[in-house]
Amino acid sequence: MSVDPDQETKELTAREQAVTDEAVASFDASASVRYREVMQSLVRHLHSFAREVRLTQAEWEQGIEFLTRTGHITTDKRQEFILLSDVLGLSMLTVGINAPASAGATESTVFGPFFVEGAPEVPLGGDIARGAKGTPCYVAGTVRSTDGTPVPGARIEVWEADEDGFYDVQYEGDRSAGRGWLRAGDEGEYRFWSVQPSPYPVPQDGPVGELLTAAGRGAMRPAHLHFKVDAPGYRTLITHIFVAGDPYLDRDVVFGVKDSLVVDVVTEPPGTAPDGSQQDGPWARVTFDIVLATQQKENE
Amino acid sequence: MSVDPDQETKELTAREQAVTDEAVASFDASASVRYREVMQSLVRHLHSFAREVRLTQAEWEQGIEFLTRTGHITTDKRQEFILLSDVLGLSMLTVGINAPASAGATESTVFGPFFVEGAPEVPLGGDIARGAKGTPCYVAGTVRSTDGTPVPGARIEVWEADEDGFYDVQYEGDRSAGRGWLRAGDEGEYRFWSVQPSPYPVPQDGPVGELLTAAGRGAMRPAHLHFKVDAPGYRTLITHIFVAGDPYLDRDVVFGVKDSLVVDVVTEPPGTAPDGSQQDGPWARVTFDIVLATQQKENE
Repeated sequence: MSVDPDQETKELTAREQAVTDEAVASFDASASVRYREVMQSLVRHLHSFAREVRLTQAEWEQGIEFLTRTGHITTDKRQEFILLSDVLGLSMLTVGINAPASAGATESTVFGPFFVEGAPEVPLGGDIARGAKGTPCYVAGTVRSTDGTPVPGARIEVWEADEDGFYDVQYEGDRSAGRGWLRAGDEGEYRFWSVQPSPYPVPQDGPVGELLTAAGRGAMRPAHLHFKVDAPGYRTLITHIFVAGDPYLDRDVVFGVKDSLVVDVVTEPPGTAPDGSQQDGPWARVTFDIVLATQQKENE
Repeated sequence: MSVDPDQETKELTAREQAVTDEAVASFDASASVRYREVMQSLVRHLHSFAREVRLTQAEWEQGIEFLTRTGHITTDKRQEFILLSDVLGLSMLTVGINAPASAGATESTVFGPFFVEGAPEVPLGGDIARGAKGTPCYVAGTVRSTDGTPVPGARIEVWEADEDGFYDVQYEGDRSAGRGWLRAGDEGEYRFWSVQPSPYPVPQDGPVGELLTAAGRGAMRPAHLHFKVDAPGYRTLITHIFVAGDPYLDRDVVFGVKDSLVVDVVTEPPGTAPDGSQQDGPWARVTFDIVLATQQKENE
């Protein structure tokens, strides 16, 4: 039987396009214009992906199975879908789309999978380590707006891994350590004790770990301390500080590093800390001034 | 402060492209060339989607939450990720990519989320209903290759919803009904009893149900009976038969209908069925001849 291969390809392409068109059109009657826009774009791009790589049935099955396991390993303390989004660069892209560098404001980075609702409040100058292992680290700075006005009472939430590279929720049991929130003082000043951050690998015992292995990628994140800063009238800031000199700054597995977020962590000998406390062993200190962008109105 | 908006847009675009480039490059060292190809394409298309719609942080969070719930509702008896792929048209597209209409072979359609491993064998002419409610339906035909050669011993697995539109696994408990497999006879002939298929809605009590509601889409599938046919040397056929005259043939929520798969289901009065059995009530019959494509060699 003689078949024109060009004609066959054209027919195949037309049949595939017809499936895409039908799936896109199925969102025409969406209740919200935005929902239609987002879902139709998602369908188009997912279909383009499948067509571009000529996705095999076995690969489709692997994808279903990968997503299923990602869902099954996710709990209220472990968010493997966020980690997946992180290692695909989608989280950092979304950060970039939504928090574009705005004149003078502190830059944003990924939220990460280890934030936990309901962390305890600590007083200004208090200790968020609460038993997390590591060298004591004194963190201080101010919260200001882009015009230099202090932001008194800003809510500063921080969370971090201990010196072994684990967050509290990665331990057995209901441990809470290395996380807490406080309010900036009347002049926007803040200070707290924590532990010096360490580099660590993202969890490798789940589907995302398999992905990193298959990709020949390392799993390390450079040492960092997470910040989430809220104040009325200002855009919520989700960011980290990174430690200058960290060997993983140029290969963060989640693409989160920005130069402006790299700070000096200074190790000090035993003695008196800036808050008057006596430190029996070595301790570290960091200065990190936070600049919040004004909340934009809708459609601005 | 005077800012050139064009310049700002260019810088924003460049920053976003840099994130995409970095994420794509992170798969450069993949152990397998194919893994690199698939993942780099996936990253590019996911990023294009997020940039095209200017995905908001809240929408990203909704996506994470949607996938998490999809994972949590998925069990060994309910596959919400397959259902999601189905309603996005991705399953049908993958079918089209992998099982292109091949001269004379029976066309393929979606696998669906209700296949269960380990269904029982029934003898040739046996009853796969095994207690499923509905009008008895006698299904018969032959399995042949595209050149007309009978395929004796072909393994034919079938599964279907009952007259209330539910598969066995949608009931409480460990019920098994409306599914089974049999072998074609020496001349490729096959026959079995089942129940007449009914249209039904896909499950609407999970994330995919919410998606359909938000999209203003119906949830119905036209009546169908699933087939999976295997025989050595032939491509596995995954398909359905649909019932001519079904009101949902033109609006299948998973885009699975192909004209060649629509068959007549003839209702008969009480009496003697083709296998000599006495039917006390009305019964239905269907003829469906199956044509298998030859297994293609790799790279062919």
